[in-house]
Amino acid sequence: MIYRFEQELERNAEDNSMVSNDSLDKVLAKAQTLSEALPYIQRFNGSTIVVKYGGSAMLDENLKYNVIKDVALLKLIGLKPIIVHGGGKEINKWLGKINKQSEFVNGLRVTDEETLEVAEMVLNKVNKSLVAMMTQLGLKAVGISGKDAGLLQTHKKTADGKDIGYVGEVTSSDTKILDTLIQDDFIPVIAPIGLGDDFHGYNINADDCACAIASAVNAEKLVFLTDIEGVYVDPSDKKTLVSEMNVAEAEEFIEKGVVGGGMMPKLKNCIEALKNGVSRVHILDGRVEHCLLLEFFTEKGIGTAILKDPLF
Amino acid sequence: MIYRFEQELERNAEDNSMVSNDSLDKVLAKAQTLSEALPYIQRFNGSTIVVKYGGSAMLDENLKYNVIKDVALLKLIGLKPIIVHGGGKEINKWLGKINKQSEFVNGLRVTDEETLEVAEMVLNKVNKSLVAMMTQLGLKAVGISGKDAGLLQTHKKTADGKDIGYVGEVTSSDTKILDTLIQDDFIPVIAPIGLGDDFHGYNINADDCACAIASAVNAEKLVFLTDIEGVYVDPSDKKTLVSEMNVAEAEEFIEKGVVGGGMMPKLKNCIEALKNGVSRVHILDGRVEHCLLLEFFTEKGIGTAILKDPLF
Amino acid sequence: MIYRFEQELERNAEDNSMVSNDSLDKVLAKAQTLSEALPYIQRFNGSTIVVKYGGSAMLDENLKYNVIKDVALLKLIGLKPIIVHGGGKEINKWLGKINKQSEFVNGLRVTDEETLEVAEMVLNKVNKSLVAMMTQLGLKAVGISGKDAGLLQTHKKTADGKDIGYVGEVTSSDTKILDTLIQDDFIPVIAPIGLGDDFHGYNINADDCACAIASAVNAEKLVFLTDIEGVYVDPSDKKTLVSEMNVAEAEEFIEKGVVGGGMMPKLKNCIEALKNGVSRVHILDGRVEHCLLLEFFTEKGIGTAILKDPLF
Amino acid sequence: MIYRFEQELERNAEDNSMVSNDSLDKVLAKAQTLSEALPYIQRFNGSTIVVKYGGSAMLDENLKYNVIKDVALLKLIGLKPIIVHGGGKEINKWLGKINKQSEFVNGLRVTDEETLEVAEMVLNKVNKSLVAMMTQLGLKAVGISGKDAGLLQTHKKTADGKDIGYVGEVTSSDTKILDTLIQDDFIPVIAPIGLGDDFHGYNINADDCACAIASAVNAEKLVFLTDIEGVYVDPSDKKTLVSEMNVAEAEEFIEKGVVGGGMMPKLKNCIEALKNGVSRVHILDGRVEHCLLLEFFTEKGIGTAILKDPLF
Amino acid sequence: MIYRFEQELERNAEDNSMVSNDSLDKVLAKAQTLSEALPYIQRFNGSTIVVKYGGSAMLDENLKYNVIKDVALLKLIGLKPIIVHGGGKEINKWLGKINKQSEFVNGLRVTDEETLEVAEMVLNKVNKSLVAMMTQLGLKAVGISGKDAGLLQTHKKTADGKDIGYVGEVTSSDTKILDTLIQDDFIPVIAPIGLGDDFHGYNINADDCACAIASAVNAEKLVFLTDIEGVYVDPSDKKTLVSEMNVAEAEEFIEKGVVGGGMMPKLKNCIEALKNGVSRVHILDGRVEHCLLLEFFTEKGIGTAILKDPLF
Amino acid sequence: MIYRFEQELERNAEDNSMVSNDSLDKVLAKAQTLSEALPYIQRFNGSTIVVKYGGSAMLDENLKYNVIKDVALLKLIGLKPIIVHGGGKEINKWLGKINKQSEFVNGLRVTDEETLEVAEMVLNKVNKSLVAMMTQLGLKAVGISGKDAGLLQTHKKTADGKDIGYVGEVTSSDTKILDTLIQDDFIPVIAPIGLGDDFHGYNINADDCACAIASAVNAEKLVFLTDIEGVYVDPSDKKTLVSEMNVAEAEEFIEKGVVGGGMMPKLKNCIEALKNGVSRVHILDGRVEHCLLLEFFTEKGIGTAILKDPLF
Repeated sequence: MIYRFEQELERNAEDNSMVSNDSLDKVLAKAQTLSEALPYIQRFNGSTIVVKYGGSAMLDENLKYNVIKDVALLKLIGLKPIIVHGGGKEINKWLGKINKQSEFVNGLRVTDEETLEVAEMVLNKVNKSLVAMMTQLGLKAVGISGKDAGLLQTHKKTADGKDIGYVGEVTSSDTKILDTLIQDDFIPVIAPIGLGDDFHGYNINADDCACAIASAVNAEKLVFLTDIEGVYVDPSDKKTLVSEMNVAEAEEFIEKGVVGGGMMPKLKNCIEALKNGVSRVHILDGRVEHCLLLEFFTEKGIGTAILKDPLF
Repeated sequence: MIYRFEQELERNAEDNSMVSNDSLDKVLAKAQTLSEALPYIQRFNGSTIVVKYGGSAMLDENLKYNVIKDVALLKLIGLKPIIVHGGGKEINKWLGKINKQSEFVNGLRVTDEETLEVAEMVLNKVNKSLVAMMTQLGLKAVGISGKDAGLLQTHKKTADGKDIGYVGEVTSSDTKILDTLIQDDFIPVIAPIGLGDDFHGYNINADDCACAIASAVNAEKLVFLTDIEGVYVDPSDKKTLVSEMNVAEAEEFIEKGVVGGGMMPKLKNCIEALKNGVSRVHILDGRVEHCLLLEFFTEKGIGTAILKDPLF
Repeated sequence: MIYRFEQELERNAEDNSMVSNDSLDKVLAKAQTLSEALPYIQRFNGSTIVVKYGGSAMLDENLKYNVIKDVALLKLIGLKPIIVHGGGKEINKWLGKINKQSEFVNGLRVTDEETLEVAEMVLNKVNKSLVAMMTQLGLKAVGISGKDAGLLQTHKKTADGKDIGYVGEVTSSDTKILDTLIQDDFIPVIAPIGLGDDFHGYNINADDCACAIASAVNAEKLVFLTDIEGVYVDPSDKKTLVSEMNVAEAEEFIEKGVVGGGMMPKLKNCIEALKNGVSRVHILDGRVEHCLLLEFFTEKGIGTAILKDPLF
Repeated sequence: MIYRFEQELERNAEDNSMVSNDSLDKVLAKAQTLSEALPYIQRFNGSTIVVKYGGSAMLDENLKYNVIKDVALLKLIGLKPIIVHGGGKEINKWLGKINKQSEFVNGLRVTDEETLEVAEMVLNKVNKSLVAMMTQLGLKAVGISGKDAGLLQTHKKTADGKDIGYVGEVTSSDTKILDTLIQDDFIPVIAPIGLGDDFHGYNINADDCACAIASAVNAEKLVFLTDIEGVYVDPSDKKTLVSEMNVAEAEEFIEKGVVGGGMMPKLKNCIEALKNGVSRVHILDGRVEHCLLLEFFTEKGIGTAILKDPLF
Repeated sequence: MIYRFEQELERNAEDNSMVSNDSLDKVLAKAQTLSEALPYIQRFNGSTIVVKYGGSAMLDENLKYNVIKDVALLKLIGLKPIIVHGGGKEINKWLGKINKQSEFVNGLRVTDEETLEVAEMVLNKVNKSLVAMMTQLGLKAVGISGKDAGLLQTHKKTADGKDIGYVGEVTSSDTKILDTLIQDDFIPVIAPIGLGDDFHGYNINADDCACAIASAVNAEKLVFLTDIEGVYVDPSDKKTLVSEMNVAEAEEFIEKGVVGGGMMPKLKNCIEALKNGVSRVHILDGRVEHCLLLEFFTEKGIGTAILKDPLF
Repeated sequence: MIYRFEQELERNAEDNSMVSNDSLDKVLAKAQTLSEALPYIQRFNGSTIVVKYGGSAMLDENLKYNVIKDVALLKLIGLKPIIVHGGGKEINKWLGKINKQSEFVNGLRVTDEETLEVAEMVLNKVNKSLVAMMTQLGLKAVGISGKDAGLLQTHKKTADGKDIGYVGEVTSSDTKILDTLIQDDFIPVIAPIGLGDDFHGYNINADDCACAIASAVNAEKLVFLTDIEGVYVDPSDKKTLVSEMNVAEAEEFIEKGVVGGGMMPKLKNCIEALKNGVSRVHILDGRVEHCLLLEFFTEKGIGTAILKDPLF
């Protein structure tokens, strides 16, 4: 088995031999960049980080490859990443394939037995495809769901008091399996399916799932890869992007209804995670190449950061 | 979360209080049975066993529950079980749902991209449903596939020299993830999907998969739960069931063409596993209730045992 | 060295081959029994239990063999047993052999130097004979007394203010040696002799000794194997056997003088153990075959159980 | 519990205060002696030594106390001592108490059931009395016999082809229990009783037992505390004491019949131990106070040393 | 490499062979002395002790050799020694060599860049020379300074408000490196140089340094090897040597100005160490041969002991 | 204590806030560079590398800071660096300060007692100054010499058969102290002073020292930071720089006398290290900024690499 990196190294070797008179300045600039990363590497060494991976970053093969390379780099320089992913548009595609129509209550899909089966199957497919790509990059990834080893226990969620089927909220978690995997240098990749009190499967919102996992393992950082640049004071004005806020400010945003529909629950998740022991939450634009590295290796970072303490 | 066993204990408690004048003889006979199990427990303590779980034993909910209870008991008395399962008729069901027609070459399904996707999704669904049921019985099970942590590497299999798509044979394995899980008392449950040299997924025959895993971990026992009673000298005559044979005898059976079509590859698997370090292989009738316990806790066992050494 | 179990297995093998047409029903019933034991095994897995072994169960060779087989089974399914034994009638036998007359004060034997020597010698003889029998069953047993590694420190006990010689009460204990042995899978077998402040040996009542050990190691269960069925409201009426009581109820029994002479100190021991961290104490009839299995693997159990909390 | 040493320290304190004008010279000479011991301490640090303890050294209370103090010192400066003891004259005393007459064949006592019972009881009594004395000196000693944890397996020994009852020879050993105890800083004290193939107890000659134990644990030194000064070329001439010999020389002594009756089997034991991995065997006069310290902390030592290699 | 001890052993061997008729009495007296050391060895087993090594004991080669032999003995019998040393007159010698004149403020040397360089170089020279001598005695010593692994952080000290250059006071410490070394049986030897907030080196008073280290590691004992016999009530009267005092008494001495100039800061150090967790501080006369052994192995000890509690 | 990195981070923070409209392109290019380093990080993860640090790279404060930052980065991304340094021109400076004239034999300085004292003092000064700078960058560095814990044993070296004093060659090493330090994440910094058979200190050539250490720890890489670009076929022609050669080729160079005087012994060292288990040796120009990063993170590297196998 030849890992892609080895191929890359071989290619580089060839390239270099061809451009032996390559400019030294350019190479030195690169070394300079690596050297500048040192304080950031030092700062996060040994930290557990949870990355909620979803949206466009998961659909475009190139972006996907870059996100995983970023995760690989974080792992190698001493961080302990945990990936939580969604299934996004794939679930709709497969429901379509079997001609399954969905009913919605308050924007939440009513999830009957068959819908859940499709959702779980698709999520596990996405899960294993991430694992395979990570393996290809030489990482030791293990794909599990909240059902494995009792990781996530859920109870039924309702919408406006109406039964919407197998949709669950995380009530408690047993993270022993995550400790075991991380201890032996595996990267856990988690599909958002939990087990109910009735031991039936329940679909969990991927953001909620990431938030629950990050809280349970006391993650240093929880990073949401999304399809927007971050939180705006006025979404119509790009210049009002907030680069940093604290919990009190985030709560004010929610109260005043400043943030839009999609961002609202995400912001609530952020606040909850921060109140449960996570130190920093980040909302990043997953469409930006190497967004994770930009966040970790530049002081200003990108997107919006929400912090536990006013100014840390 | 109340585990089913606790409910059972509660029910037992009630039952007992109702039948307080229950016959002591009956209770003593039960204690006698437990006591008789002692030498068998002692014999297998600490052994790794691989159970290939498939066929009817996986379709009937009651049989399924009993198989898992048996596995739970084996775990608790000190064995280290690993489960490998197939997907059986579920794959056909889902291919039907999306109106996918399959072509066959020499009895092997031509597996194009979409067929593989369905197969993998269904196998993972079956995988997690086993895990959920084991969790319900208080076991810590973790469902993985050959893709996770590079567990199973495969290369493309052909049929009569024809390309039949994403069907693979195991070429090598990295069992580090199994060691990690077993070490921390988790039970691995494995779906037979591997990773090719091209890092694409490949469908693996579940029997082959179980055989490869058992060899790689030097299992003490490999048990096939099947839909037949065992190996017959003359399949039409139930009295000709072979209860024990050695490798040489099994090879003779194959050479003489005594065993029928379905049994032939299974027998070859058995021989290969025995040549690769497994001590005993068993072909059991999964339709018999508690067939695993019967095999482990009675001297004669059930089904057909194939042994490394003539009479051990 | 061929352990008795191996011989048993061989015998079974022969038996089975002789009764090849044995009824499958009977075998299935046995598997069913094993399967029913699962929740109980699960419940006690990893628990430390102290068994006070004495009375008839120690005199009859067959009962002795069965008690030890039960202990072996408990060990194999994951419990951590500790045995405390008495010397019973053997001490009298050997005092007789050397024509030693004993004086008694308030029913307690005055224990002079020579009497103590005989008592200690006999207790150690009984100790090693239990160890030998356990070794024969493939168990790794280690026989020690309270003198070893400072396990039990005692001070002199008096009877009605009178000096009765080398009779001691446990004042403190150093259970490091028990941790060491249990950690490496040995079963400690303890003779009730302790060391006084004067570093002389002291005879300890075996029930007191078991109680002290169970308290010191925070045992999950303390089991007394006795020569009576349990505690009776009215000893003359077998129907008044109490199957379960709590500490308050037990104290009431003692206050009202309901229980008879022999049971009184045992009941006090039970209460003390429960107040010192033991979860459940059981008074079983050691004359019943497999009484330990009956207690551990049936909900109702046998004999009398005294619990820490009213109804648990 | 106040250990004797603490009392000693207190006494010393008082003594010192009384003799405050004690000569500094004397104290300095003592410091000098301690300092001189350094290279010897360094040499034996971490070594396992087996001490066969018997004869007069075991009968005189003062000698006994000194031997144990020496063992304590060896333990504290980093050696790992194992004690094997005999029962000596105590066995005769107790056989006398019960009016038991013994028959002898070739100088070996015919050991019937009752004789074995007495021998085992007495040996265990001696065993625990050593343990108690060691506890008093603050050591953590654990008294076991060859029956415990299957330490010593034996087969029946005959004398001139005649059955002499329960007298055994060590055939194999399982030293796991010694490793466990030594690992946790306990000092094993071993009574020479083993288990036969019939799981009956067998009396073992204490010298043979020490030799078997020393070989099994690959002891650095095996020390016999005896009632003679060592090996003499001519026992009637004290000047012919041999202070050092090698295996070849020892074998020559035996061949030529130079050594007397009692020493002959001991010398054979020494040779066997040296051939089985022990580095040095010493025959010391246990009647000399602090004979162990003299052997360990002076270059010349006392008694006779038998070495594996001619001149080491 | 032949360690000096081995040579010594060889010499001893020769000596002994020459004086084979050496008096046994003398040898026995030595064994007696070793035996008497037992309770003291037992008392300090496993304790961490910090020895401040300086003054005459460091200048005389013979005294130096004896101090190190004492330390070796303490290590071998189970103590964990840490050495802190000064540089004494060597610093002056080298400042002289480069014709460097020093200015003094309030008796403290003004330490400019060059003076610090010389001081650090000399201290490291002394450090490595101690390490070499310890290696020669078979000890595994590692010489470090407060700069290594951030062991000692300091801030600038002033004298009467005047800047006296690179003279520092310990403000905090990171003793991880000491744990690492001690854990693997190395003896740390520490030169009193620390790192300032400006990451410049700072000279630290050796007594202060020893006190800071002893406090940080919660040493059982802190021993100052000095050039006086101890603390006197009246320095002109040798009979007024105080052999033991408590913190309150020491504070009284300081208040009343009883002790002289040199002793004053040392006494303050003692008190501070005792208040920071050290159990006993000793002021010994390093000019007395084997003063460490005399302190550790005689009840009365030598010099002055200052204790945490009035009479312990 | 505020580490310099933290200050840097703070400064970065300010910078960024000032240049909030900094070009994203530039930032992205940096992320790209980091991402490209991934395969190299993966390749060297967990490897031990020995860096011989000397020449100009040690004299210029800026170069020094960059070398240490590079080492810090290598440590953080999972390599295990060991630094060996020389003393260079500092030794001459201090010999000058004390007006010490040196005699030379065959280009080797005759090293009398005083010269050795100065050399050792200066080397330790350099050693601690590196340690201090590394501490400032948040690294846990520990400065030792070959004297510590018996790391380097040497014997006297002669020049043309003439005694040149305390100049030594490494004869053997005990790397236990390096294992201990590396295991606990400390970076060893080694001064090239060893201990002779006479336990006197000996000056060792720093290149020889690095070579001995690299061989003893089986380093993956040994890197020489020098003042030349690498090995030239024709030193007068910059275009003839050899970027890679194998042992056979290097030996040919030496035989033919192609390389100049200074390079000759270095090349011999390289060959010896490769024959003793080191996989790759690099001769780099320490005057190039970030030369270590350039070597580790570009395929072509800089300087000359000498490999064990022809084309590896």
